[in-house]
Amino acid sequence: MLLIPGPVSCTDLVIDTLGQDSLTHTGPRFAETFKRVLLNLRKIFNSSKESGSLPLVLAGSGTLGFDLVGSNLCPTGKEKLLLLSTGYFSEELCECLREFYKLDVTVLSSKQVGGGIDIVVLQEMLQETKYDLVLMTHVDTSTGVLNDVEKLSGLVHSHSPESLIVVDAVCSLGCESIEFDKWGLDFVFSASQKALGAPPGLSISIISERALRLVLKERNDVDAPPRPYFTSLRKWVPSIQSYELGGKVHYFATPPIQLILSLDVALKELLETDYVTNHLSRSNWLKMQVVEEMKLRLVTLGPVEKTAHGLAAIYVSNPSEVMKRLQGIDIDIAGGIHPAIRTKYIRIGLMGRDATKENLLKVLEDYVN
Amino acid sequence: MLLIPGPVSCTDLVIDTLGQDSLTHTGPRFAETFKRVLLNLRKIFNSSKESGSLPLVLAGSGTLGFDLVGSNLCPTGKEKLLLLSTGYFSEELCECLREFYKLDVTVLSSKQVGGGIDIVVLQEMLQETKYDLVLMTHVDTSTGVLNDVEKLSGLVHSHSPESLIVVDAVCSLGCESIEFDKWGLDFVFSASQKALGAPPGLSISIISERALRLVLKERNDVDAPPRPYFTSLRKWVPSIQSYELGGKVHYFATPPIQLILSLDVALKELLETDYVTNHLSRSNWLKMQVVEEMKLRLVTLGPVEKTAHGLAAIYVSNPSEVMKRLQGIDIDIAGGIHPAIRTKYIRIGLMGRDATKENLLKVLEDYVN
Repeated sequence: MLLIPGPVSCTDLVIDTLGQDSLTHTGPRFAETFKRVLLNLRKIFNSSKESGSLPLVLAGSGTLGFDLVGSNLCPTGKEKLLLLSTGYFSEELCECLREFYKLDVTVLSSKQVGGGIDIVVLQEMLQETKYDLVLMTHVDTSTGVLNDVEKLSGLVHSHSPESLIVVDAVCSLGCESIEFDKWGLDFVFSASQKALGAPPGLSISIISERALRLVLKERNDVDAPPRPYFTSLRKWVPSIQSYELGGKVHYFATPPIQLILSLDVALKELLETDYVTNHLSRSNWLKMQVVEEMKLRLVTLGPVEKTAHGLAAIYVSNPSEVMKRLQGIDIDIAGGIHPAIRTKYIRIGLMGRDATKENLLKVLEDYVN
Repeated sequence: MLLIPGPVSCTDLVIDTLGQDSLTHTGPRFAETFKRVLLNLRKIFNSSKESGSLPLVLAGSGTLGFDLVGSNLCPTGKEKLLLLSTGYFSEELCECLREFYKLDVTVLSSKQVGGGIDIVVLQEMLQETKYDLVLMTHVDTSTGVLNDVEKLSGLVHSHSPESLIVVDAVCSLGCESIEFDKWGLDFVFSASQKALGAPPGLSISIISERALRLVLKERNDVDAPPRPYFTSLRKWVPSIQSYELGGKVHYFATPPIQLILSLDVALKELLETDYVTNHLSRSNWLKMQVVEEMKLRLVTLGPVEKTAHGLAAIYVSNPSEVMKRLQGIDIDIAGGIHPAIRTKYIRIGLMGRDATKENLLKVLEDYVN
């Protein structure tokens, strides 16, 4: 039983679909599937074709999304970035952009581990400085903090309409509501192995029309800073567009055929359910048990219903013992990952096939308490 | 029937292994498999642990290998590179390093499409200029040119022992002989979906001890040029080393579990066969048929036994017609990809489960001729 916050357990049909031979990546059978995947991703991102946005699927881990941001949305290298940090994965994104891409990154961190962003401070910062990019982590998988992306992006739009808004949705796409077009987001990146319910190995993202214009804009290449190749959207856009349009496939790099075929099934299955509501109600139910019945404390501060709905981060007195006990009966949960509290808490994934109320209750009642 | 030069058809056991649920990426079951994968890759690269080298497996397409070179082996951005170009994929690597990483790349191209590198000219260039890196494509999948890596690297060592030697082995690992330690190579990159017989989605490479020292060397980060994050070996090395050593896994990014599990089976199966000899004899046999019996011309110049043994690139008068006829009976071969002759030839893959003599003969006799 796999109850970590990703990779998650997949349905039988997703797994059966994964277990098939390769198809030609430029042939009609694969092209048709890839087209459907892109169209279904639009539904999950809530972004229409008419908006001029483009969904993207690349071979890679979720972390590859960091490079998609660094290599495409900061073409001059002189951009000013504001990063809202709510945990380990925000810090990783910061390291990527500041240390590796040498970008000017201002960080606004939540004051406490498990806390959110101070709206008043953010407002002041947006009024004081013009940022080219504002970046936030929808769900930080280390703390379970759920940023209110609608509210935060609204604030950015009203104070700094030119700023591009970037969202790390690795642990939110497929379990939290994301309204790419309505909220005016510019780049959202995620991965296959969490709430989408597919195997790991795919970086999944979407880019807005105005961000795409920035990426594709002709510029004097002599002045441009060094940038990687595999994450270059200048190279990928013609290929992905050819898959979405149908017709002759434009080759850039070989896509991971079987992963995309199984993602196709996972997306179809997800879209048949009320996935946002389902994750919300299961998470609320579980966390009420944890807090009310078991008298344990969540890492995430604030009301339980405002915490991430794809995982529960819970302080326990003996994390490694709990995990070892569970491993003994072949149940995997995850340990802490936030440096400040690493050895003090456990994380239970609430995504994927195995995350049923029954399974979760068993873990909680028999092993955590 | 899949007879393109990658992705190739896999054996039933590889496919069955692919079709399983995720495991925890930090758990002992996955860690054990990953360890075996790394050890078996050492056998295929012919590189011992004692040499201080490190094999690498990352989520990504073969193209990600380009970025592994650009982002790790050129830390100052002022390195001088010599690239031996033998076709489309060499040109892509050149574009990556010159246009994207802004590196100083000198190109020595084969004079004719399908031809190899002029050894005399190379010798002169190595005597004239000190290059930090010399890069070559073992097999260019667009032309079927097989570089004599042993000879070329020997030449580099004798004239310029400090130069690091980089080899694109995307279409050679698993079908051509590669002696990483003996030939003194420094970085060789490949992919899962060609002669290794696994599904696409994995970038597979190996780095030498002296190249690793360069990567891990402490330097003043202020002066360092921007570099990507996901391909940073500074980030990956502790993680991969922890998998090879066994014990507690050091997390960097989530590995594509199922792809690595199926690669494990593919490598075990490959190592049970005499894969270099098998590919060589099948390729020679097929190409003799093509040249002697069918009186067709290969794209690759020189004696047939010196051409790449994982594919056949053949001039035909009507490539699209041949491919359409074959598609009609569900056999996929590939078209041309080298810009100079794109519409004039076909490419038949000689790797993977479907590339039996019987199948190849059927394609040749019934459809190509």
